[in-house]
Amino acid sequence: MEKIKVSNDVSWQMPVVIMGTMVDGAPNFSTVAWITRLGSEPATIGLCIDAAHYSTSGIIKNKAFSINFPSVNLAEKADFCGIYSGKNTNKSNLFNIFYGANPNAPLIEECPLVLSCSVIETKDFDGDFFIRAEIKEAYANENVVKGNKVEFVKMEPIIYMDKKYYKTGELIGQAWHIGKKIKEDAE
Amino acid sequence: MEKIKVSNDVSWQMPVVIMGTMVDGAPNFSTVAWITRLGSEPATIGLCIDAAHYSTSGIIKNKAFSINFPSVNLAEKADFCGIYSGKNTNKSNLFNIFYGANPNAPLIEECPLVLSCSVIETKDFDGDFFIRAEIKEAYANENVVKGNKVEFVKMEPIIYMDKKYYKTGELIGQAWHIGKKIKEDAE
Repeated sequence: MEKIKVSNDVSWQMPVVIMGTMVDGAPNFSTVAWITRLGSEPATIGLCIDAAHYSTSGIIKNKAFSINFPSVNLAEKADFCGIYSGKNTNKSNLFNIFYGANPNAPLIEECPLVLSCSVIETKDFDGDFFIRAEIKEAYANENVVKGNKVEFVKMEPIIYMDKKYYKTGELIGQAWHIGKKIKEDAE
Repeated sequence: MEKIKVSNDVSWQMPVVIMGTMVDGAPNFSTVAWITRLGSEPATIGLCIDAAHYSTSGIIKNKAFSINFPSVNLAEKADFCGIYSGKNTNKSNLFNIFYGANPNAPLIEECPLVLSCSVIETKDFDGDFFIRAEIKEAYANENVVKGNKVEFVKMEPIIYMDKKYYKTGELIGQAWHIGKKIKEDAE
C-alpha cells in the first residue's frame, strides 16, 4: 500500500498510570502515559513530564513518587487527574491512600498495583523534565498475583491511544515463542 | 482489598515496535517494548536497550534508526525479531524495506506506520543503553490516516503484557473528557 507522510507527533498505544507525589505536605495525583521501563536490575523506569507541572516541585524536593495502575473502573478518576492541575484542584481526597516505607510516595488503595519509586536522577530534556527512578516496592491486590508476579490481564489495565482510553483485548499469543515458527519453517 | 508485596520487576501494558538499524551495511530489526514519548516540540522519544544488542553498534555509528509499528498480522515476525539476534540471524530479508531521507533508517513496508528517527544523545544508564531521539519523518498507510494524523485503532496495534501479545480492546471513553463528570458532580 502507498504510504503518505503524516505528523511526527504520534501517540501510540500507551499505558495509563497515576503518579502520586507529596506537594506542600499533601498528596497530589497526576495521570501520565509517557513512561517506560529502563533497566532490569535494579528495576528502573523513566518518564517525562512538563517542567511546569504541579507534581514537579514535589519530585525535586522529596526524590520520591508513586506509580499507580488504575483498572478500567477508575478511568474517570484517572482522566480527572490528567485534566485538572493540583495548582487549582485539591486531589488529596480523591482516593484512599496508604504508604510503604517512603512517606513521600502516596499509594492508591483503589489501584490493584502500586509502585513506590525513588528518584535516581532528573534531567532537563529541552524543557521537558525527565525522571529516572528505581522501583523500590510494589504492592498488588492478592487476586491479581501469581507467585510473586502481577498478572496484568487480571487487573483490566487501561490503554491510552488516539486521545481515547481502551481496554486490552484478545490474546494473540505467547511472546518469545510464536516467532519460533518462522525459524522452524525456514529450516 | 488487602495488598501484598510483589516483585519490583513489573511488565505493564506496553507497545510492541520493531526497531530498524543499519549494521555493517545491512538492515537489522529488533523488537522492543521499553519505549516512550519524551517531548512534543520537536517530537522526541526515549528507549533503553541492552548495550550488548547487535543493533547498538549501528545506532552509535549512524546516529539513526527507525521505529516500525506492526499490526496484529505481523505478530509472529515481530516476535521473531525479538527472539533472534542479528549476530546469528540475517533479518534483512524478512520485510520489504524502503527509505525516507535517511539511508540509515530502514523502514518496513508491511508496517502501517513507520518513523525515521535521528539520535540526539545516548547515555549509559547503569549498563543499559538509553537513546533519546527525534522523530524526523513519519509515514503511514493511507487507510489509517485522518487529516495528517494516524488513527492507531485502525492499525490493530499490538500490546505486550505478562510476556504475551494482546490486541487492543473495547473503547472506554474520550481522554481529557470523561473526568470532567467528577468535577461537575462536585459542583
